[in-house]
Amino acid sequence: MRNLTLLTDLYQLTMMQGWYFAGKSNQKAVFDRFYRNNPYHGGYTIFAGLEHVIRYIKELSFTEEDIEYLRSLGIFKEDFLNYLLHFQFTGDMWSVPEGTVVFPGEPLLIVQANFMEAQLIETALSMFLNHESLICTKASRMRTVAPEDILMEFGLRRSHGADAGIYGARAAVIGGFDATSNVIAGKMFGIPVAGTMAHSWVMSFSSELDSFREYARQYPGNAILLVDTYNSLQSGVPNAIKAFKELMASGVKFGKYGIRFDSGDLAYLSKEARKMLDQAGLKEAVISGSNDLDEHIIRDLKMQGAKITVWGVGTKLITSEGSSSLGGVYKLAAEYDEGKIIPKMKISDNVEKITNPGIKKLFRIYQQGKIKADLITLADETIDGKHDLLLSDETHIWKKTVLSKGSYTVREMLVPIFTNGNCVYKQPSLQEIKVYAHSEMETLWDEFKRLTNPDKIKVDLSEKLVALKKQLLYEAKQEW
Amino acid sequence: MRNLTLLTDLYQLTMMQGWYFAGKSNQKAVFDRFYRNNPYHGGYTIFAGLEHVIRYIKELSFTEEDIEYLRSLGIFKEDFLNYLLHFQFTGDMWSVPEGTVVFPGEPLLIVQANFMEAQLIETALSMFLNHESLICTKASRMRTVAPEDILMEFGLRRSHGADAGIYGARAAVIGGFDATSNVIAGKMFGIPVAGTMAHSWVMSFSSELDSFREYARQYPGNAILLVDTYNSLQSGVPNAIKAFKELMASGVKFGKYGIRFDSGDLAYLSKEARKMLDQAGLKEAVISGSNDLDEHIIRDLKMQGAKITVWGVGTKLITSEGSSSLGGVYKLAAEYDEGKIIPKMKISDNVEKITNPGIKKLFRIYQQGKIKADLITLADETIDGKHDLLLSDETHIWKKTVLSKGSYTVREMLVPIFTNGNCVYKQPSLQEIKVYAHSEMETLWDEFKRLTNPDKIKVDLSEKLVALKKQLLYEAKQEW
Repeated sequence: MRNLTLLTDLYQLTMMQGWYFAGKSNQKAVFDRFYRNNPYHGGYTIFAGLEHVIRYIKELSFTEEDIEYLRSLGIFKEDFLNYLLHFQFTGDMWSVPEGTVVFPGEPLLIVQANFMEAQLIETALSMFLNHESLICTKASRMRTVAPEDILMEFGLRRSHGADAGIYGARAAVIGGFDATSNVIAGKMFGIPVAGTMAHSWVMSFSSELDSFREYARQYPGNAILLVDTYNSLQSGVPNAIKAFKELMASGVKFGKYGIRFDSGDLAYLSKEARKMLDQAGLKEAVISGSNDLDEHIIRDLKMQGAKITVWGVGTKLITSEGSSSLGGVYKLAAEYDEGKIIPKMKISDNVEKITNPGIKKLFRIYQQGKIKADLITLADETIDGKHDLLLSDETHIWKKTVLSKGSYTVREMLVPIFTNGNCVYKQPSLQEIKVYAHSEMETLWDEFKRLTNPDKIKVDLSEKLVALKKQLLYEAKQEW
Repeated sequence: MRNLTLLTDLYQLTMMQGWYFAGKSNQKAVFDRFYRNNPYHGGYTIFAGLEHVIRYIKELSFTEEDIEYLRSLGIFKEDFLNYLLHFQFTGDMWSVPEGTVVFPGEPLLIVQANFMEAQLIETALSMFLNHESLICTKASRMRTVAPEDILMEFGLRRSHGADAGIYGARAAVIGGFDATSNVIAGKMFGIPVAGTMAHSWVMSFSSELDSFREYARQYPGNAILLVDTYNSLQSGVPNAIKAFKELMASGVKFGKYGIRFDSGDLAYLSKEARKMLDQAGLKEAVISGSNDLDEHIIRDLKMQGAKITVWGVGTKLITSEGSSSLGGVYKLAAEYDEGKIIPKMKISDNVEKITNPGIKKLFRIYQQGKIKADLITLADETIDGKHDLLLSDETHIWKKTVLSKGSYTVREMLVPIFTNGNCVYKQPSLQEIKVYAHSEMETLWDEFKRLTNPDKIKVDLSEKLVALKKQLLYEAKQEW
């Protein structure tokens, strides 16, 4: 196990020491984690990475070697280094569960701890959530265009480092993928692993046919033959058919068998190959396809009648092609001064960079089992579904909707994860998270799942929160 | 230390077992590593990741736990699992040194080993080189537009997992960056670490001015104050000036001090701030800028006279915005049959996917200290610079250039890394690699370094290699 305690930005440590010597060691702060835009111009994001965050926080511990390194930088004092040597996270955390469908601007994870603890964890926490939510969301987009097919993650060789491949594979499963080629991810998370052969297998034999015969003979349980090493339709498919038929004739019983295309026009090739396989009586042979696929290409191939039912998706999933990052941030929302909550707000000339102050709750409003809107309130407010509910648009304040009592249901989204440094959350299994994420997708009308130009879920602020925001902005402007 | 032996695709293991039981355990193969297109529409790539590959190969070792996991999959036989338990890499490897400027289609790393060993390492080897070359090349593009400035890598919170942040920081340094905010990367590789404060520092005090006073008092050696929490020019810069002047008046001696902008129009803000700082007599105060920077934005800001000399680059560097992956591949080039070399070629309907067969060498031709062309030959050819040299274009064969002897110099690019499984390469330090990469960039005329629409370095094939390629293509077509 690697110790990732130093997986942070230097400024977290310089600020921590600053607070330590400014007498703020025990002052509590509240930070919100949120993001500003859905990736891929999509209508939603799936929240992922929470399990990684929990493990990271549990394992936080500066080693003597870490301290020695920090000492060598010449900017930290011994008192503070000694504090770090005994550092552990003693704060509180709330979060939406992993696999939840979420929207821009919402507090998805809240940390309440002293400034030093809350700040140290910002970098890694943000990174895990940014990365894993990004890949999970990309995977779910592919699942929406191929709801019945088998989706396999093949991206490790193009991932940005080992962790990108490993945690990317896990995130893809939450988003709806069935399997990965990544063996270490399979081992770590119990994900089904998949894969049969590369071109080098075919080229290592004196003929393509011999290479197919040998593979199918050794692996009758899962014999997917790669048919595009020389010429897919003139050589690859006929040789695959020949190998399967010969072996069947000699008594071999196949489990899953079929072919894979890794180049060329997958719609044309798969339709032709399907005919050839069917004519040869190999109706159960599956056709899988790979080669720089993404949700748009899969959708188009399916619309053109491609006879592919197993998709191997690599580069564009594991590198989140189209949105290189999720811009999730972690901002101070409040601090405690002698027990009193002081709401805090970051101000900016860019309106969208002005944060929501105070300790908050996130409510989800459902009608007919689908999401109607999300509502951010202050922590002392509650939405119980027993009253008429006024939803008002923050920017277009004349636009209001009233939901009458009984016509909607409410869910409070944030659940306790850490209390006084102890993990109080029962971690679901990966399979449970995947099932949950699937059920979450069911709460979205199709309009919000469209690949491009989707409709936008309303995320409203309570009137009380809007009033606080206005007041703090007014007070801040008085000071210049 | 993590064991990354299972960091591979499942098909590598199924093929390995296939060869094992097909009686090919000892048959040697030769694989080439190359890529097809420069990232970012640029004119070059910097080769990075070799140190990571070397360490990975040295540490390859299946644990009992790994074997137990593989056994649980139900597809591997005990004989083969026992072979894996004693697996180590016993083959040969040649590579261009880390930091070398390289071009599409060139063999950059060659592995000669039995099929099983050569194949197991494909995935991780490809991934390390793809990832680190990609980030290194992005960093070098930023260095070309800001040759005299300080460049700092700030991307960890947006990286695709921990390794993307850690090895991305290292790659950025090779590409020309000076420092990183990533503490664990600093510790692992001895990279200078940088960073001072975030908005939360400023917001945690009752006033911006107090937060600046406190920070500058505690860190006079490196007091870079973040001035955009409330209003950059009306509040942030005046308060920073006030804090610096007060502390100077009280006798504090500053080392490096100045301000940072993290939002707004960096050209306008930095020019205004420069005037304000200069008028206050703070001519040594540095101005640093961050906020979704990349090479294009830095170039434009500099053209508009931005007074920023320290650039903090995050997301777009660490996620290689603009090219989510480098499509490096690893293809069978030859195999040995009873000591005889059998050249191998992957054929495809896509001309650019047809590989170069045989065991090869890569030569670089220089004139006036700059790269004139690269030349790929077969291994039994040599280019010694003592004869006239004919360069001919592979696709436009009528286009020929003759370099007369004495007018050019030659360098053979591939150097031995592993021989019979032993590392024979003296690994340079990161600083040495960075200096070497800088000298490599000096061998490119400016035309090849342009951000967009650069000129293209010629990569030629020797006549003998072209003849072999034609012959193999002809022979393959006979078989269908």
